[in-house]
Amino acid sequence: MAPMVQRVALIGFGAVGRAFARLLLRKDAEIQQRHGLAIRVTGIITARRGAAWDPEGLDLAAALRAVEEGGGLSPLSRSPAPAETIAFIERCPADVVVEITVLDPRTGQPATDHVRAALESGRHVVTANKGPLAFAYRALRDLARSRGRAFLFESTVMDGAPLFSMVREGLPATRIQGFRAILNSTTNFILTRMEEGLSFEEAVRQAQAIGIAEADPSNDIDGWDAAVKTCVLANVWMEADLRPDQVQREGIRGIGPADLEAARRAGRRIKLVCSAERTEDGQVRARVAPEAVPLEDLLAHVRGTSSVITLRTDTLKQLTLIEHEPEPMQTAFGLLADLVNVARGHWG
Amino acid sequence: MAPMVQRVALIGFGAVGRAFARLLLRKDAEIQQRHGLAIRVTGIITARRGAAWDPEGLDLAAALRAVEEGGGLSPLSRSPAPAETIAFIERCPADVVVEITVLDPRTGQPATDHVRAALESGRHVVTANKGPLAFAYRALRDLARSRGRAFLFESTVMDGAPLFSMVREGLPATRIQGFRAILNSTTNFILTRMEEGLSFEEAVRQAQAIGIAEADPSNDIDGWDAAVKTCVLANVWMEADLRPDQVQREGIRGIGPADLEAARRAGRRIKLVCSAERTEDGQVRARVAPEAVPLEDLLAHVRGTSSVITLRTDTLKQLTLIEHEPEPMQTAFGLLADLVNVARGHWG
Repeated sequence: MAPMVQRVALIGFGAVGRAFARLLLRKDAEIQQRHGLAIRVTGIITARRGAAWDPEGLDLAAALRAVEEGGGLSPLSRSPAPAETIAFIERCPADVVVEITVLDPRTGQPATDHVRAALESGRHVVTANKGPLAFAYRALRDLARSRGRAFLFESTVMDGAPLFSMVREGLPATRIQGFRAILNSTTNFILTRMEEGLSFEEAVRQAQAIGIAEADPSNDIDGWDAAVKTCVLANVWMEADLRPDQVQREGIRGIGPADLEAARRAGRRIKLVCSAERTEDGQVRARVAPEAVPLEDLLAHVRGTSSVITLRTDTLKQLTLIEHEPEPMQTAFGLLADLVNVARGHWG
Repeated sequence: MAPMVQRVALIGFGAVGRAFARLLLRKDAEIQQRHGLAIRVTGIITARRGAAWDPEGLDLAAALRAVEEGGGLSPLSRSPAPAETIAFIERCPADVVVEITVLDPRTGQPATDHVRAALESGRHVVTANKGPLAFAYRALRDLARSRGRAFLFESTVMDGAPLFSMVREGLPATRIQGFRAILNSTTNFILTRMEEGLSFEEAVRQAQAIGIAEADPSNDIDGWDAAVKTCVLANVWMEADLRPDQVQREGIRGIGPADLEAARRAGRRIKLVCSAERTEDGQVRARVAPEAVPLEDLLAHVRGTSSVITLRTDTLKQLTLIEHEPEPMQTAFGLLADLVNVARGHWG
């Protein structure tokens, strides 16, 4: 039986987009064989490398080569493609739009506009961008529903670990009452290295050296990234309608060797804990703050760049998922998993 | 919109079946509202309390009362129902057969015959019984496929934690290369209590007192239950075709205080570890044995009746799922999750 063809447009072709392309090249035959699905990238648009489209599918290996050699994508295009992203989204020959542009974490743009344009033009949407979920989840979810289109985002929190699909598929008829989590790899890495004796500054430099902290690490260190993720989970799972600045937030900038040593002597480890719970008046309170976590708590044992979440539910009580030392491939995998679930209709 | 009606027959109405009935009564309105699904129990057959069926749906609260007061089910039946289980399965007015009888762990019967009869008579099957998967997974899976019917079994391993659905829905196009796990609550509880100073015999008695060990605890202590679960996971995920006696097996009967103390001094904890891996010749080697697990390994920190699994995959690398201190409701929830996924067609 010929596989079902899914035409996909990539909005953005940075590290995650290229990891996705490599993963798809590696897994293409297996996806066709196991899932009866042929995923074809029919459009790519970038900020600095131009755009290309081809309704028959672009040559992904050639696209990777072009970008990695510093060239542009337009020679791969069957016909001239719009240079403007919204126009590209509206006109590209694709069933699914994969939104993976660089995000402004304070506004959720331009990803939110891209997602909206894609849904309004009748495409399913898969994104690795937290912004649209932190700033406009409810509106985008309702828009997707009204158009009968999928809106999936597995890669936004804990990379491609099957967090959202676990709740969607594995926990039907279940209310998420709250969660406790470590969701920011950079700060968890820094705290782990500080426990091993590095100063805060040395640990930050090491995180920058291995590529998990940016030149200006404040987005991680001050808890913004963790707050955005906490906000996303509360909005998606707990019917909250929070914005990141409504998450009570304290970063790790104030943590020093004396704090770590005091925690150690008390049989604890300091972790940047993300949490949400429903208060008695039905609101959702979300919080990011360093906590001295006792060693009896699994969160204390999740170290380095790994992440963890413990859900409290009204059916399974507590459930914990841990992702170990992710790489860009993990984020790319979340996109691939979402695409397969769009194709098989496992998203409603 | 009127909800879709799913007619369900329960084969067995012991602790798990009754927990399922209570859960369904509690969640019925929520399932209808959130999933557009009305689950109706249209048949129940038991070993000692008779049988009842009603194509319009039995009164579950009345069924619970009847059995808990020591009565029989037949007064609830709209018309006389067969007393013989296979005949009941073949003729009951149900779309889905839920197999939850008491199992003979050495043969996988009578559950395997029940599952086969249900699939052959065109029903979807949901089971909490490990036996059919340990003794006949491949044949039953192929039978279900050939009939176009679902065969789901979330509650067989780690109770209702979304283990199988996580792999099925969250890890498409992924190969499970191996796993390490603690899957037997009873032995994990006993080892935890022994670390706290109890003797082996005292810990076993405490496990019996709280109802997690049987009068003859050898099925747990000698690693049989763990071996059956390991066998199930290897068969379902790794294309193995093992039987429980092909799992290399060592229980915890030989573990004494001196072993625990030696482990403690070495910064380790003794755990009954279930594992499987693919060998170089493509076979699957499965094993259950006590191991002195280092404290750096998350398995060391999963205590009491909790359970844990770490999967090794070719897409997400490692992924860990932990279930905390399950109760019968957890197993019942796995049945409910499977039923919702049968109804929405998320099983292929």
